[in-house]
Order: sequence, then C-alpha cells, then structure tokens
Amino acid sequence: MFAPFSLSAVLPALRAGEMLLMACGASKDQGGAERLAVVIRPEALPMSGLPVGTMLGTENGPLLKVEGRAFWPGWERAVFLARAVSDIPEGTYALNAERVGCALAVITLSDKGFAGLREDESGPALLDRTRGELLLCHERRFLLPDEPARLRALVLELAGQGYDLVISTGGTGLSPRDLTPEALIPVLDRRLPGFEQAMMAASLQKTPRAVLSRALAGTVGQTLLFALPGSRRAALENLDAVLEALPHALEKLGGDMSDCGRA
Amino acid sequence: MFAPFSLSAVLPALRAGEMLLMACGASKDQGGAERLAVVIRPEALPMSGLPVGTMLGTENGPLLKVEGRAFWPGWERAVFLARAVSDIPEGTYALNAERVGCALAVITLSDKGFAGLREDESGPALLDRTRGELLLCHERRFLLPDEPARLRALVLELAGQGYDLVISTGGTGLSPRDLTPEALIPVLDRRLPGFEQAMMAASLQKTPRAVLSRALAGTVGQTLLFALPGSRRAALENLDAVLEALPHALEKLGGDMSDCGRA
Amino acid sequence: MFAPFSLSAVLPALRAGEMLLMACGASKDQGGAERLAVVIRPEALPMSGLPVGTMLGTENGPLLKVEGRAFWPGWERAVFLARAVSDIPEGTYALNAERVGCALAVITLSDKGFAGLREDESGPALLDRTRGELLLCHERRFLLPDEPARLRALVLELAGQGYDLVISTGGTGLSPRDLTPEALIPVLDRRLPGFEQAMMAASLQKTPRAVLSRALAGTVGQTLLFALPGSRRAALENLDAVLEALPHALEKLGGDMSDCGRA
Repeated sequence: MFAPFSLSAVLPALRAGEMLLMACGASKDQGGAERLAVVIRPEALPMSGLPVGTMLGTENGPLLKVEGRAFWPGWERAVFLARAVSDIPEGTYALNAERVGCALAVITLSDKGFAGLREDESGPALLDRTRGELLLCHERRFLLPDEPARLRALVLELAGQGYDLVISTGGTGLSPRDLTPEALIPVLDRRLPGFEQAMMAASLQKTPRAVLSRALAGTVGQTLLFALPGSRRAALENLDAVLEALPHALEKLGGDMSDCGRA
Repeated sequence: MFAPFSLSAVLPALRAGEMLLMACGASKDQGGAERLAVVIRPEALPMSGLPVGTMLGTENGPLLKVEGRAFWPGWERAVFLARAVSDIPEGTYALNAERVGCALAVITLSDKGFAGLREDESGPALLDRTRGELLLCHERRFLLPDEPARLRALVLELAGQGYDLVISTGGTGLSPRDLTPEALIPVLDRRLPGFEQAMMAASLQKTPRAVLSRALAGTVGQTLLFALPGSRRAALENLDAVLEALPHALEKLGGDMSDCGRA
Repeated sequence: MFAPFSLSAVLPALRAGEMLLMACGASKDQGGAERLAVVIRPEALPMSGLPVGTMLGTENGPLLKVEGRAFWPGWERAVFLARAVSDIPEGTYALNAERVGCALAVITLSDKGFAGLREDESGPALLDRTRGELLLCHERRFLLPDEPARLRALVLELAGQGYDLVISTGGTGLSPRDLTPEALIPVLDRRLPGFEQAMMAASLQKTPRAVLSRALAGTVGQTLLFALPGSRRAALENLDAVLEALPHALEKLGGDMSDCGRA
C-alpha cells in the first residue's frame, strides 16, 4: 500500500524520455556525465524509497516516473532511476509522489533465448495477458540463462525495487538445468499452494504430461511471484487459471486493511 | 488409543459442576483456597497423564471429567483440572479412568474478535458441524488475536493436553497479519497434503478467489490439526470437504492397529 | 542418458545365469572363492560406473548384464555384480557397454510382509503394471519392514546403482509406523507436486478416505521416485494416474537435450 508523499529535488533540464539519477543525501563531486537530481532532505523519503512505477509531479502534471534502482559509484545509498515523462526545465521542484496500479516484471529463463538462438515467445505473451487484466503503472521484461543464482538475485532485487508482481517462465521441468524451484523456494516468505493447485488442475485438463511441471507461486516481501513453465502455451494456461484472482491477491498482499474475515 | 486404568485419589466434597485440581505426588502446604484432590501413587498414571475428556468414576457411574492441565504454584508436575459431573462426598476413591470419543478444540484467530469488535461466527459454526459428525468427549473454544507465537504455543499445549482434533479459523490469507501457516508449519510432525488438496479443490468449485487460501492440515503428535480460513463460509466449505474422512483419520492417528494394508 | 563405451576385462569361464564380480583397479589377492573379473584400465569407466541394466557384450552378442553394486572385502572401490546371459569362455574381452530401457525397483514396506505373515500383493502388481508401460532393462523387488532408516538407505543405494525408477508401496498413512514420507522427503533433490496432485485427484474420485494418503513423488539424482500407498488397489490407482507421463518424465530426467521449451 503506497502512501502519497512529497519531496523536494533539484532537477537538471530534461527532455521527455531522458533518464535521470535521483540521489539522496549531500551532493558529491561526480566524475561522470550522468544527469543527476539531488533529493533535498532524504529523511522525507520512506525507508522503502521510491518503488518502481511511482510518478513524481506537480499540480501541473507528472514529470518523472521511477523505473529502477541501482547502487551508483560515489553514493552510499541506492540511487533511483527516473524517466522524464515530459520536458522539464532546470530548477528546484516540490514533487508529489503518487502510485496507481501495479508494477510487473516478466523474466524469461532460457539458455537458447539468452544466447540469441531462440526468440522468446513466452515473455511477451505473459506480458500481454497480464496487461489485459491489471492496471499497470510499470512493466518490464528480463531475459536470463538457466542459472538459478542469477534468477534468485534478480527476483530479490525486483522485490526490493517495489515490483508488485513478478512472473518467470522456464526452468520448472525435470531436465538437469530446470532449476527454477530450487532457485526460488528458499527466498519465498510464503508459498501459495492454492495458486499452484489451480494451475496444475487446469494444465492436467489439457495433457497428462502437465504432471512434470513444478510451477510455483509465493510471495517475497510484498511481491507476488509466479514461476511458470517455459512453453508459451503452458505458461499462459497456468496464468489463465489464476488471472481472475490476481487483483484480489495483490490488494491483500499490499496490506489492504479492509475487513477480510467475511465471506 | 486410550488404555483404561485405575487410580486412587483423596477427594474433597464437591457439587456437580465444580472444578477440582488433581495433583500428583506428596501433598504440600497450599496457601490457596482451591479445591484439591491428591492422586495417590502417581506412578500409576501413564506418562501422558490424563488427556482431556477422560472420565473418572466408580462402578456407580462417572464422577469427574478431565478438562485441562496447568502448572500450578506449589507443584512441580502439571496439575489436571477435572470437573465434577455429579455431587461427590468427601473420601478416598478408587477411580476408573475411561475415555470414549474425541476431544475437540476450535481456535478463532481474529484481532477484531479478540478486541470485542466483531462476533465470532466461524468458531461456533465449526464446532456445530464437527459435533454432528464425531462422538465428542470434550469440546472447547478459544479466541486469539492474529499473533502467530500465541497460536503456536496454544496448539502445542492442546496437543499435550490430549486433544484429538484442533481446528483453527483465520490467518490463512495474504494480508500482513495472516500468519497462521508460518505459526503452525514448523510444529507439524506430518503435513497432510491430501486433506489440503481436497479442501482447496472444494473451494475452487465455489470461487476462483479460493486460491488465496493457505489452509493446511497436519499432525502434532497424535493430534490432528486443521488451519482453516477465517470466513465462516470458507471454513465450513473446507471442513465439509474432509468431514467424512475424519473418523478414519482419527482412528489411524491414535494408533489403531487393525490391519490397514488392505484396500 | 547413457553414453555407450568400451572396456577391457579378464573374465573367468562362466555359465549362463552365473553371477560375476567386476572389480576395478589392480588385481589383489582374494581369499574368497567368488568369481571375479578384473576390469583393465578402470579410468575408462565413467565416474558413475556401470548402472544396473547395462549390457556388456561383443559384436557377437551380449555376455553380461549388470545387476547391482557392492562394497566387497579387499577392494576399495565398489564392485559391480554382473550376470552371465550366455556361456562365456575364459579370456580377455573387449566389451561394449550399452543400455536400452529403464531399470525399475519396487520396494514393499510391510512389517507383516517382512515377517512372512502376509503375502505382498502390491509389489508384484506394481511391477506388472509398470512393465506394461515402460521398456525395462532390469527389474527387481525388495521387501522391507516399516523402518524409515532402512528405506532411506535403500533408496539412496538404488539411486546410486543407476535405477531410473523406484516405486515404494506402504507407509504413507497416518498410523504411528507410517513413516515413508519422513524417510524420503529429506533425500529428495526435487519434489514433484504435479505427480502428487494428479495421484490424489484420481484417488479422491474413488473414495473420500484417500485424503489420508501422503503418497509422494520426487527425484533423487537422476532417479524418479514414487512412494505409493500400501494397499494394492490404492497403489495401482496412484500409478495409473501418472503412468502415461512416465516415459516423458524419465527422458527429461535423464538429461534429454531435445528442445523442451516448445509446447
């Protein structure tokens, strides 16, 4: 649950589409040529920082959208990456931070895809299908080889950046390099067997081979995570089985305090 | 499996409904005014003590029913709480311990319920439904806030007191304070995925939102444990899905040695 | 996935059906009278040795089938047990190692069966049913009492011997000595919830009592493992629910490198 707040920042002149680093704390001598905004009074920022999908703007409209977070040379704290959504004149701004909708990341795991030997059909298809069901404030695709350590690190980073929903595709089978569950189960805060059962039941109605899938669902912090099979068809089948429940799940996970004890 | 046995005890005069402490070992000077029975020759007691629901009586009929266990100031061993089921004259008795049927505890987890802000509908409904299916020798309801440490401690205590069946309701969802699985999974001796699957399959036939439930089933010692959703409707749906199998499960769990290898 | 290779060995004269020890490394003084073959240049052997079901032969046909592995007094490395499939004259042979099909072990867990008080109906039935679906290069039955430590050790040994598929029957219920999941879950490399769900769903269609089953599926190294209920009827019901997917699962698990990302 995102509580709107305000912050002050010194912005350089930007054109729509340009990326900006937003650093907190005292300004430092920067050797690089990157465009840098300095947030004044970083203590005004929530501890969780600026989740991806946050819009920063004035009463005249949005100026910047947060799209990432990174550790940047010369700064002790993580720096936020924001993209200008309109031309911005240089100046000091009082920015309102607001966030509406969900941030979605789709990760395709494929040695062949990563090597450029196969086109990723599953990632774009999952993005399309989800986009049709959820109001998204940010979306992004990632491509990884079948390396569990890299997948685990990426998922933790995305949860830290404030993605509400992370969907991976690939690595759920029985082949020696199918290690997505091994990568992700240890970092789940909660496993969600109901989602898994619904996905498997739907797949079994299509083919008895579905038993091989080790697709899983769980949470990492306030991020909802699905690890779906690699094939486009199977991944969409799985997603379709739970799509209808996603808005409710994301609401609850975000700390919606509405009374949930009633049927 | 309860094996009947006998014990001797010095009982004070009691009226039907009065609660009695049954202490084992040498009599001690007690400052309090509580009614106290001293069991003679505590070595005659099974190590597991007197499970709740045990009836203590003579050939003329039952005198006392065990309803709990507590550590009491002045006694090193746990003291059993027994309620007089008829008027009892003071005296030394040779009591036969017998136990027929199951002891059931229903725990409602609800911050609002605990604070008195909402009436608990789920607990009484679960009690009613179970009562219709099982022969109960004892039943009891508990109300807790959504505090996992308290739930875990209570479940372990109830298993130690000899409850055959413990059903909790609440805390199985995705909200930040829905922590029932986190509280209970670490203390399960055996998880029972078949019960969980049957409950989820039944719920999914009603609503796709059921995927959010993390209802679970397992055993703690010889106690069968179910953690059901908080809503009355969902909790009953879950229970109904497995009610028919409960008598058989309780029999097996209690160490029924009848041949179970045959279909 | 078994890659054919060749090895040289000095063989004693053997009649069809006789068992032979195949030891690797320098020949040693052996006090025993066992028939011994010495493999020349053990470095030609794969690290995994000779999996059960491997056929050793010349261009004139098969001579020996590997049926086991053991640590043998006087040898530091495990010794392979091979059975002559035809009469073999003494001599030095260049043997081609080939392996086609799957090796299957069926383990019956039953105190009564082990004590000779009950005939094992489940083991033979599971063997028959599997034999009808898979091309087997080796099959073997084992009988154990309900002792989890012995089951765990046997399963690990069988995985090490190269069995592709291990099916146990018994010990999945709720009785105090039903400890098969406790024995096996800790040694699984991967748990396969899809197989478990399909088996449970099939059983629930027959009887609501099926919820008691804790049948499970998983992998130990490249071995596919199923722990099925003890009753013949329930065990076959479970197996039937996944039989159709077994060939595909065994292929994938063995490291089949065919493209599996496509639907």
